[in-house]
Amino acid sequence: LRCNSLKCRSLLTERAVVTTCSHVFCVDCAERLGLSTATTGPRKCPACNMQLQNPDDAVCTYLNPADDYKTSVLSGLSPAIVMECAARALAFWNYQAAQEIKYQGYLADSITNRYRTLSAQYDDLINQANAEIKNLHEKIQSISQNTH
Amino acid sequence: LRCNSLKCRSLLTERAVVTTCSHVFCVDCAERLGLSTATTGPRKCPACNMQLQNPDDAVCTYLNPADDYKTSVLSGLSPAIVMECAARALAFWNYQAAQEIKYQGYLADSITNRYRTLSAQYDDLINQANAEIKNLHEKIQSISQNTH
Amino acid sequence: LRCNSLKCRSLLTERAVVTTCSHVFCVDCAERLGLSTATTGPRKCPACNMQLQNPDDAVCTYLNPADDYKTSVLSGLSPAIVMECAARALAFWNYQAAQEIKYQGYLADSITNRYRTLSAQYDDLINQANAEIKNLHEKIQSISQNTH
Amino acid sequence: LRCNSLKCRSLLTERAVVTTCSHVFCVDCAERLGLSTATTGPRKCPACNMQLQNPDDAVCTYLNPADDYKTSVLSGLSPAIVMECAARALAFWNYQAAQEIKYQGYLADSITNRYRTLSAQYDDLINQANAEIKNLHEKIQSISQNTH
Repeated sequence: LRCNSLKCRSLLTERAVVTTCSHVFCVDCAERLGLSTATTGPRKCPACNMQLQNPDDAVCTYLNPADDYKTSVLSGLSPAIVMECAARALAFWNYQAAQEIKYQGYLADSITNRYRTLSAQYDDLINQANAEIKNLHEKIQSISQNTH
Repeated sequence: LRCNSLKCRSLLTERAVVTTCSHVFCVDCAERLGLSTATTGPRKCPACNMQLQNPDDAVCTYLNPADDYKTSVLSGLSPAIVMECAARALAFWNYQAAQEIKYQGYLADSITNRYRTLSAQYDDLINQANAEIKNLHEKIQSISQNTH
Repeated sequence: LRCNSLKCRSLLTERAVVTTCSHVFCVDCAERLGLSTATTGPRKCPACNMQLQNPDDAVCTYLNPADDYKTSVLSGLSPAIVMECAARALAFWNYQAAQEIKYQGYLADSITNRYRTLSAQYDDLINQANAEIKNLHEKIQSISQNTH
Repeated sequence: LRCNSLKCRSLLTERAVVTTCSHVFCVDCAERLGLSTATTGPRKCPACNMQLQNPDDAVCTYLNPADDYKTSVLSGLSPAIVMECAARALAFWNYQAAQEIKYQGYLADSITNRYRTLSAQYDDLINQANAEIKNLHEKIQSISQNTH
């Protein structure tokens, strides 16, 4: 997981703030962007602008929970609810993975475009330079013929 | 789920206190048995006496969590940890189901035993009564013969 | 798991035939009851009479699958489908557990009823015997008084 | 999911051959690479060369299974085994997602490198051209001065 603030993208290893709209932020960005602090009016997701009205719509979570937490967090819930919680958490993870694939694909595409632009620009420059060199050679030849 | 205090066994529908040793109590029993209140020394499970040292070894849980809770409770955790939490909660549920099967089976067995004991006691009583009746009939016959 | 044929109820440990209506049978009962063999017309569940039209509505399954099976059985499916398959299998298991709890509870209830019936019958018999004994004692006393 | 044969990488939508070493191939590649056909000696994974000795080490799977399949595929298995199967399938999926992230990241990196190489090559060419142009300008100036 990486912070979904595109200016940050720091690797999340210990704590993170997750939203029910499937976004995740480092604790610093969450505070800076008004996600973790109670303010007037509902919170909004900095990534997708969704209103986060319920208390658990954005929560701080420990990414490496202790053993007793892992044992008791869902205990007592019916198997159907347990599987619902697990399925939603997996959907969250897969959304983040899909976004990362898209992000890396976007990076590859945008660099490919810059490569093509650069290549075209340089080709232009080299054509201009070759034209000028050719021009200068002709000038020299013309001067040489005139002086003889 | 039913409260694991055998004197209570009340149906748990809203809130319950669960332990990492796979037991569950109604909130009243948990308080009465010193499970939910912080006391000197580690807490102990009223059902199996296990020491509950870590903060999440006994926690109060809502059995019908809200939608935002279900979405965010495990979000951000890796799929491996998500599945670990889910598997432990399912093991908890299955332990409780197995205990309930055992409990109902124990009830059936103990009533079967009481049935057999009662049946034997009554058979004795009836045999005694029949013997006494036979004895009295013979006595009457003997008196009748003597008086003629 | 136990065979859902009430006359059998054998413990299922190796292979079993499961249905999509959440019932399970030992291989012998499944064959005897026409569940595993292809016959004319759709198969029916021997427990609930549901029509089993699709090929996977009743399948023979190994209850202790090998490691390579466990790894590959759901591999390739999306996390959403994986969780759907798992949730359905857990619902199956919980239905069976709930039925077993009901069955044991039914046993306990029916033995409790038989206990009460027996107890009432015996009480009647003993009352009758006591009345007859009392009657005979009075008869003896009356005869004794008459003979003096 | 995409076919793990790097020359193919076709999107997998209907059927695919999955291996217990977490790789997946389109049916055509699986056949072409000897994965689906029974041959002498154990099969080997075309992606990582792992020996696939057990029958379920490489299986053809339907990526959009029917409803009756989804209901019965894991039914009858204990919750612990159900969760084990699900966890392994999720690990498979996440491995593939991680590989795709790596692949897209590798693409981005390799195009970045090509961009830098191209940029350096062009800079050299342009420097050479500029030097030659400067040289020719000086030559023209020198000729012009000599002719006056």
